[in-house]
Amino acid sequence: MDYAKRALDQHKKLKGKIAIQLKDKLDTLDKLSIYYTPGVAAVSSYTAQHPDQARDYTWLNNNVAVISDGSAVLGLGNIGPYGALPVMEGKCMLFKHFANIDAVPIVLDVHSADEIIAAVRAIAPSFGGINLEDIAAPICFEVEERLAEELSIPVMHDDQHGTAVVVLAGLINATKLTGRQLKDCKIVLVGAGAAGVAVAKLLYKYAQPQITAVDSKGIISHGRQDLSSAKKRLLEFTNKDNVTGSLADAVASADVFIGVSQPGLLTQEMVKTMAKDPIIFAMANPTPEIMPDEAKAAGAAVVATGRSDFANQVNNALAFPGIFRGALDNKVRRITDEHKIAVAEAIASLVQKPDSEHIIPSVLDDRLAPAVAAVFT
Amino acid sequence: MDYAKRALDQHKKLKGKIAIQLKDKLDTLDKLSIYYTPGVAAVSSYTAQHPDQARDYTWLNNNVAVISDGSAVLGLGNIGPYGALPVMEGKCMLFKHFANIDAVPIVLDVHSADEIIAAVRAIAPSFGGINLEDIAAPICFEVEERLAEELSIPVMHDDQHGTAVVVLAGLINATKLTGRQLKDCKIVLVGAGAAGVAVAKLLYKYAQPQITAVDSKGIISHGRQDLSSAKKRLLEFTNKDNVTGSLADAVASADVFIGVSQPGLLTQEMVKTMAKDPIIFAMANPTPEIMPDEAKAAGAAVVATGRSDFANQVNNALAFPGIFRGALDNKVRRITDEHKIAVAEAIASLVQKPDSEHIIPSVLDDRLAPAVAAVFT
Repeated sequence: MDYAKRALDQHKKLKGKIAIQLKDKLDTLDKLSIYYTPGVAAVSSYTAQHPDQARDYTWLNNNVAVISDGSAVLGLGNIGPYGALPVMEGKCMLFKHFANIDAVPIVLDVHSADEIIAAVRAIAPSFGGINLEDIAAPICFEVEERLAEELSIPVMHDDQHGTAVVVLAGLINATKLTGRQLKDCKIVLVGAGAAGVAVAKLLYKYAQPQITAVDSKGIISHGRQDLSSAKKRLLEFTNKDNVTGSLADAVASADVFIGVSQPGLLTQEMVKTMAKDPIIFAMANPTPEIMPDEAKAAGAAVVATGRSDFANQVNNALAFPGIFRGALDNKVRRITDEHKIAVAEAIASLVQKPDSEHIIPSVLDDRLAPAVAAVFT
Repeated sequence: MDYAKRALDQHKKLKGKIAIQLKDKLDTLDKLSIYYTPGVAAVSSYTAQHPDQARDYTWLNNNVAVISDGSAVLGLGNIGPYGALPVMEGKCMLFKHFANIDAVPIVLDVHSADEIIAAVRAIAPSFGGINLEDIAAPICFEVEERLAEELSIPVMHDDQHGTAVVVLAGLINATKLTGRQLKDCKIVLVGAGAAGVAVAKLLYKYAQPQITAVDSKGIISHGRQDLSSAKKRLLEFTNKDNVTGSLADAVASADVFIGVSQPGLLTQEMVKTMAKDPIIFAMANPTPEIMPDEAKAAGAAVVATGRSDFANQVNNALAFPGIFRGALDNKVRRITDEHKIAVAEAIASLVQKPDSEHIIPSVLDDRLAPAVAAVFT
C-alpha cells in the first residue's frame, strides 16, 4: 500500500509524467518548410486575420491549461507552485487519458486575485480552455468569476464545480438506494471553502434540500461575526432555522454528511447520532473525514470518499475530462448550472442498479467522458 | 513548391502540430493512486519543501516555454498572439525533434515590457527554461535582461542570440572558404532590431571586425537624431569612421553583407560594388533580402539564407535546441557570450571542408544538438 513511498519512487524514476508529442515527424527539409519557415508564415497571416479560426490550425481546439497558484493543494494547504506542480501534472495525465485533451500544467508564482487574473488573461490566447485548480477561497471565487466574464474560452474552477457535480451525481444514486428524496434530506456540509460553497449552491439549485454548513468555528449562522462574504451568501439558502453549535450538534439526525474539509473530523459517535442508514461522503484529500470501515461500523448505509483505493470514489475525475471535452468540441464559452446538473444526472445514470459499494461509476469507466461531453452538444 | 497553400492545408488537416503524451498508461486504480491522489500528496509535500528538487519529480527537467507576444513574427510584423501561435507550435516541434525537449507554446495578450515580464515571471515555476521569441525591439532587450536577472532558470531571446550564434558559425566557415580573416572583414549589417543588435555585439566580441550597421533610414551614424538607445549603443563599436549614407553607400567594397531586415533590399547592382568574392547572408524570413541565384549571378562567392529550401540554411534551428538541451541538463542559469561563441565554433566545426553550398551543417544533422549541448558541460 505505502503510496507515499511508491509515489516518490515512481515520480523520481519517470522524472515527469507528461511529455510533448509531435503529430507528424519532422524528418525532411520539406516538412520543416511546411511546419516552420517559410510555409508557416501563410498560416500565421491567416490566423492573425481570423483569430476565431486559430483553433482549426493549431492545438487550441484540444488544449486546456491546468492552472494553480498552489494556495490550497489537496489537504496540504498553501504549498506554493513547486508543491502544486506534481498534482497539476497528474491532472494533465487524467485529461489526456480520459478525454484525449492536451492539458498543460501552469503553476503561478503570484497569489492575489488581481495578479492571478492578470497572468491568466495574459496567457489565455495559448489555450482552448482554463481549468483553475487548488486556488484557496475566497480568492478563487473572484478569480473564476472575472476570468469567465472576460475570456472567450471556458473557465472552470474544478475544486468548486467538478466537486459539486460529482457530489450531486453520487447523492442522486445514494438517496435512491436508501429510499430518500434529495429534497427532503437534512444535509450537513463540512468545509465552506471553494468546494463546500459550490456543493451547497448546486445541491440547493437542484432540489432545495435542508442544508447546514459547518466550518472550523462551528455551524455557519447569522449571529457569527467572523463570516466571509461567501459564507454570508451561504446563509441566504442554508440553516434557515438559524441553528448554532458544533459539528456534533449539526450532525445529529442528519441524513447526509458531506465533508470537504479535514482528515478525521467525523467520529463514529457522531455517525451514530445521524438518521437511520445515513449517507456519508468523506471527501477530504488524501485522508477522509472518517475512514469507510469506521463509518460503516457505526451504521453508515453508504460511504464515499475521493480516493482511488476505496469503493465509491466520488472524485472530480468523473466529471472534468468530459466537461472540457464537451466544451471544446462544441465551442461552449460558459459552463452553466444547467450544464452541471445535466452532467451530474448523466454520470448518475451510468449506474443502472446502485448498491452500497457502487453508487457512482468507476473513474476508469470508458463511457464517462462521452456521456458527460454529450451534455454540451 | 507553393508552400503557402500546402502549409495551410496541412495545418488544417492536423489541427495542431503538437500534443501531450503520457509517460505511463493510466489504466489502473493503483496507478491513479500513485500519480494522482492519494500518492501524489507525498510528492507535492516533498517538492514544496525542496523546490530545487522539483525538476527531479516533474517535467521541469526537460521542458521549455516558447513565449511570444506576436509583436515581430517572421517578416510579418506585429500580428498578435493568434498569428504567432502557429510559429510557436512549429518551434516546439523543432525543440522536440532535435533535442527531445518538451516545449510549450505560450502566446501573450500583453505587449508592454512590464506586462510581458510580469506574465512570464508569474508562470516561470512551470518551466525549466524560457525561450523568448518574436518580441519586437526595443522591448525585447529589457524583457530579456530583466527576466534573465530575476529568474533562476535560463532565459534566451532566440531572435537575438540564436541568430547571432548561427551567423557567427556561418561566417567562421565562409571567411575560411574565401580566404579571409573575420577580424579584417568589412561587414555591413542591415536591420538593427533584435537580431541585428545581437549579431553585431557577438561578431565584435569574437573578432572586432569593421562593422557598419544600417537601418531603414540609412547608415547608423553619430549625427542622426532618431536613434534608439540600443542603436546608440551600437555606435560604441560600429562605424568608427562615422560614415553616413544609404545602404548602397555602405555596401560598396564590403566583404560581408548580413541582412536581418526586409525582403529584396539588396540589389544585384549593390552586390557588384562589393569586394571580390563577397559573402552574403540574406536572412529575412520568409523572403530574403536577395534571392540566392540573383546574388550568385552578381558575383557572390557564398550565399546563405534562413530558409529550409535553399543551400546554407543559417537558421536558429542549428543552435537553440542544443543550447537549451545543454542548459537544462547542466542546470545552467545564464547563457553567456562565452557559451554563444563556443556554440558557434562547435557548429562550424561540424563542417570539415566547407564549400560554397556547405558552409554550415544541415539543420537535420543529428550531430548538432549533442555537439552544441556539450558546450555547457
